[in-house]
Amino acid sequence: MTDIDILISEVGPRDGLQMAKSIMSTADKKRWITDAHAAGLREIEVCSFVPPKLVPGMADADEITRFSKTLPGLHVAVLAPNYRGAEAAMAAGADKITVPISVSAPHNRANVNRTPEESIVEIARICALRDSLPEGQRPAIEGGLSTVWGCTIAGPVAQDEVVRLSVALVEAGVDEVGLADTTGMADPAGIRRVFKAVRAEIGDDKLGGAHLHNTRGLGLANVLAALDIGITTFDGSLAGLGGCPFAPGASGNIVTEDLVYMLEEMGLRTGIDLEKLIAVRKVLESGLPDEPLYGFIAQVGLQKGGKRPDRLAVAS
Amino acid sequence: MTDIDILISEVGPRDGLQMAKSIMSTADKKRWITDAHAAGLREIEVCSFVPPKLVPGMADADEITRFSKTLPGLHVAVLAPNYRGAEAAMAAGADKITVPISVSAPHNRANVNRTPEESIVEIARICALRDSLPEGQRPAIEGGLSTVWGCTIAGPVAQDEVVRLSVALVEAGVDEVGLADTTGMADPAGIRRVFKAVRAEIGDDKLGGAHLHNTRGLGLANVLAALDIGITTFDGSLAGLGGCPFAPGASGNIVTEDLVYMLEEMGLRTGIDLEKLIAVRKVLESGLPDEPLYGFIAQVGLQKGGKRPDRLAVAS
Repeated sequence: MTDIDILISEVGPRDGLQMAKSIMSTADKKRWITDAHAAGLREIEVCSFVPPKLVPGMADADEITRFSKTLPGLHVAVLAPNYRGAEAAMAAGADKITVPISVSAPHNRANVNRTPEESIVEIARICALRDSLPEGQRPAIEGGLSTVWGCTIAGPVAQDEVVRLSVALVEAGVDEVGLADTTGMADPAGIRRVFKAVRAEIGDDKLGGAHLHNTRGLGLANVLAALDIGITTFDGSLAGLGGCPFAPGASGNIVTEDLVYMLEEMGLRTGIDLEKLIAVRKVLESGLPDEPLYGFIAQVGLQKGGKRPDRLAVAS
Repeated sequence: MTDIDILISEVGPRDGLQMAKSIMSTADKKRWITDAHAAGLREIEVCSFVPPKLVPGMADADEITRFSKTLPGLHVAVLAPNYRGAEAAMAAGADKITVPISVSAPHNRANVNRTPEESIVEIARICALRDSLPEGQRPAIEGGLSTVWGCTIAGPVAQDEVVRLSVALVEAGVDEVGLADTTGMADPAGIRRVFKAVRAEIGDDKLGGAHLHNTRGLGLANVLAALDIGITTFDGSLAGLGGCPFAPGASGNIVTEDLVYMLEEMGLRTGIDLEKLIAVRKVLESGLPDEPLYGFIAQVGLQKGGKRPDRLAVAS
């Protein structure tokens, strides 16, 4: 990452579409991923390898992954909830596979029907499968720790438990541990506290990015808190797609466009052309006409006149 | 402020109502201010002493100020654009008078029909008037520097000019200099840079609070940036009232409820009961039925179960 300061991972085609009310066509997905890549995104989580019976909108995961691999330089990330999904993801050629595991036991049960300990065992099997592949064909395995800052089912989540499971994930063989504020309960002080505690145990090179939600409006403040302690990878979702099922009007993931705007204004290079990225929203408008689109900067527009012409030259 | 860490100044009755499409009745304003005070707010900017011909909704400024002075412990702040307004505000007994002055010359012309230099002269006259009052009856005069992080008319604003006018305000006799992101163009890096530069010249005791807008969604991230360098006074507007005239859907001022939520979650004491504060929105719903109300936390609700029961006990 010598030419960018911050890696933004677009998770909309996976996290956003998984929550959408209708199903986006495979053609529209390809257009979205193509246009997002053309706008400068280096990593896109393009799909989830889940049973089509459970999530019909992800039935084209294999095709989408193989297509995404044809885009030059794109780091193709996918989600897989279990061994079978990870196996399919590896067969399709994914560069990175995130396997979710909730710190909250009841959330992990609801999400992947396992205890956290059973998830650790499953992830160790996935890592062993990765190791069985020829060198150069091994995807990165990310342990995606969710409900890190609180759970809507279990309530408070203990930081010690987050640290313990992070260490267990590293021992299971993951390449990195990502921390997710699945429920939008994090605050900036908690972001700093938990990231520091995890990093102290697993080290910088095993610490992945931040997957933050904007449920309570603190998404970008939480990004700033994480930035301040050296986190350089952030997930975002175009137009905040996905929303929050129990909070109409509140976007789910942080809005990629707003995230890019903040970082570029701060002088941090994302490699993303913000005007082109905003234009990608048109794919959502036509492909998912019933889905609400969020985001401030797409609505307000870039700064007229601009306070820092040198930065605007980068952004425009 | 021994029992609170952060002073939140509610500016809705002034900044919010000034932008509203309809006029709120004097009775509703009194109810709003009474209920906000009961929710724990220590400072409220209750009105603006402007000519009723220009802003008919502020014709009751004298009555509202005198009424607010009857609420125990409330620091009654008002805005006055000029000497005549400040004189009336002093007669009504305001505790604090903010006099706006834009760093951007064309914005200052549009706002108060003066050059910034003429504003400095006017503010010096206001400070002299303050000094002519008996000790104990002198309001604090705040120089409210606006368009600090950019102007929609003039474009970029030079940091040197912000610092120069801050020093000129102190020399004119103001008690403090507040910095306002009138146009919502600030980013966290700029917030830190400019506040530090101004503080280096005028010192901590003359540096007032941050008046931030959420036009581009960075409001709370900008608060965090200011917090990190020691700023402890922040303006907010209930329900983000006021909106942004050129950005439908984007709130104007940062939403007081969301601000309180973030700070309290971080373990910072505001002295405000968030549930009671959210309930004050009902005054706006009935008193200004056509006005859009913003804010995440009022919509999503406080955390169910809560990740930190000790903090929720404070907030509930």
